[in-house]
Amino acid sequence: MQFNEILNQLKTYEPGKDIELIAKEYGVKEVIKLASNENPLGVSQKALNAIIQNASKAHLYPDDSMSELRNALALKFGLKMQNVIIGAGSDQIIELATHAKLNHKNAFLQCGVSFAMYEIYAKQVGAKAYKTKSITHDLNALKSLYEEHKSEIKILYLCLPNNPLGECLDAFSVEEFLKDIDEDCLIVIDAAYNEFASFKDREKHIDPAKLIKSFPNVLYLGTFSKLYGLGGLRVGYGMADEELINALYKLRAPFNVNILALKAATAALDDEEFVKNSLENNFSQMQEFEKFARENQLDFIPSYTNFITYFFEEKNSSDLSEKLLKKGIIVRDLRSYGLNAIRISIGKPYENTRFFEEFESILKKN
Amino acid sequence: MQFNEILNQLKTYEPGKDIELIAKEYGVKEVIKLASNENPLGVSQKALNAIIQNASKAHLYPDDSMSELRNALALKFGLKMQNVIIGAGSDQIIELATHAKLNHKNAFLQCGVSFAMYEIYAKQVGAKAYKTKSITHDLNALKSLYEEHKSEIKILYLCLPNNPLGECLDAFSVEEFLKDIDEDCLIVIDAAYNEFASFKDREKHIDPAKLIKSFPNVLYLGTFSKLYGLGGLRVGYGMADEELINALYKLRAPFNVNILALKAATAALDDEEFVKNSLENNFSQMQEFEKFARENQLDFIPSYTNFITYFFEEKNSSDLSEKLLKKGIIVRDLRSYGLNAIRISIGKPYENTRFFEEFESILKKN
Repeated sequence: MQFNEILNQLKTYEPGKDIELIAKEYGVKEVIKLASNENPLGVSQKALNAIIQNASKAHLYPDDSMSELRNALALKFGLKMQNVIIGAGSDQIIELATHAKLNHKNAFLQCGVSFAMYEIYAKQVGAKAYKTKSITHDLNALKSLYEEHKSEIKILYLCLPNNPLGECLDAFSVEEFLKDIDEDCLIVIDAAYNEFASFKDREKHIDPAKLIKSFPNVLYLGTFSKLYGLGGLRVGYGMADEELINALYKLRAPFNVNILALKAATAALDDEEFVKNSLENNFSQMQEFEKFARENQLDFIPSYTNFITYFFEEKNSSDLSEKLLKKGIIVRDLRSYGLNAIRISIGKPYENTRFFEEFESILKKN
Repeated sequence: MQFNEILNQLKTYEPGKDIELIAKEYGVKEVIKLASNENPLGVSQKALNAIIQNASKAHLYPDDSMSELRNALALKFGLKMQNVIIGAGSDQIIELATHAKLNHKNAFLQCGVSFAMYEIYAKQVGAKAYKTKSITHDLNALKSLYEEHKSEIKILYLCLPNNPLGECLDAFSVEEFLKDIDEDCLIVIDAAYNEFASFKDREKHIDPAKLIKSFPNVLYLGTFSKLYGLGGLRVGYGMADEELINALYKLRAPFNVNILALKAATAALDDEEFVKNSLENNFSQMQEFEKFARENQLDFIPSYTNFITYFFEEKNSSDLSEKLLKKGIIVRDLRSYGLNAIRISIGKPYENTRFFEEFESILKKN
């Protein structure tokens, strides 16, 4: 059978090996997963209650207006419900934006290394990728590449803070930078981890209402998968000028987010104590990760997220990841991004302590 | 901002009025919803237990290989895991199939009135719709339209049984018909309600393993939203030859189905008693709906699903639906399909009794 031509350019899906199973095959008793930037404190109690209370409604289609969650988000950010769209993860909003703006005749722009889904979705519509030589966000480099290919670039991604590297631009410099971007270029501000950055340094805080007011071409993305502890439920959101949200809605499938995910997200948004504990645990533990790096002469970028990325010179990141796996610790090897680095999610204190012990011993033997 | 041209041809989303809220505004105490073909017996106990047991894992990303559910489905249908793809509702598999095969230069074929999402997704890629004059599935009409536009038609939909009309082709005649369809045309067998049809009449039973063996261009769709009582969780599946599944996988977003949905679906598949009770309730109650139609001289198509569609001549379906709504009973007006008809989901006995009482009184006053 012939498929649309674009499929020839897409990779065949490799069924993911269940990495936890592999670890167990190595005879490890307790697997510690520090690979997916999940919240180490688990599910917020309020969200957990919402899931259990609503489980018996799982046979009913959700309210497709999603007004409860959209209104809660609008209220939190000083916007209207009409400025909000909910996705099955913020990934799905990226997918909608891609289909709304990109095609085989145009392109998107990002920094050298950023969230992989930008490019994966763009490839599905045959759009070209422009990336700066700088792996992290360098506004001068982004601007010069943008100016060079202005007529082609229809989406510009800024990941604030950046996954998988952890650095974060100041909100002020972003605002200045955006003034030079054409109105027809969609600017996606991926703020999946921005609560972490804002907590560490208020200068990193992106205010979507303020940005949207100045820039009708900005789409702000947030998620419940990280700080809000609902990675398994797939809920994210996009916020923008109403015209832009309407365009995305044209491509949205009905009932794109499930009833328990909507209920849990609404409850999680309200769980301030859980959020506070998550942020405090993250950054007190982050200090341990930085200390470990310094003690072991590892390069790292100070992180504004819930993970940290260690870079290696002589040692090999894939080899190190494999050795950690044999000890039952799962981290993210960044080899597929072209980096000799590993990304480690900040876990609970006892998980991190085990990581430090095992990794130190691996580094010394290596 | 300019969007991809196709968006100009798509309707702006109308935020759905929450119909239950409206009913409550009419001062109704108990709203009876017979509009979305949800399972009136609710959530199966096994699925409910699975949700509650796994709620505390909602912070963890699901196993993206989805091997547990894919293997369970493969086992049930005599296929391999590689023949199965899971979607956020079978809708999402229709979306993937559309993006794999359709574009602005080709077309799809369906009977006159069928599941609305076929056309909605096709419009998003600019593909043309061919529909038979016959509103129900008429194989001769489908064949003649297919022959006429063979080079253009790249997806053929057969909805067995058909939503929103309820009729169902015999499996044998479908197999014969498929022999005349070109190998490059993707045949989507939408079996979302096929368990109901099979229970009523074994001749309607579609065996995906048998079909896939004979026709590498068949994609069989099933869902957990109807018989399995998980409409709110959005889980469906596609089964086909491995090559076809691989093509769909190229377009699938990672983590497209959430962790609680996967766990609940796997458990529901195993709840034979719930399935049996659901089927028995449905068809014993269906007799009441047919009896009611005959007593009130209403046209209907004998239904092989969990809903029934009543047709009207002089009376107006929108007017009747509105009057039912004022009594707190929600049904689906089929005006948007160009029909003067309403579709009623088969509910619990007491819900159906209330429907009969209210509707009879409305019909008599009208």
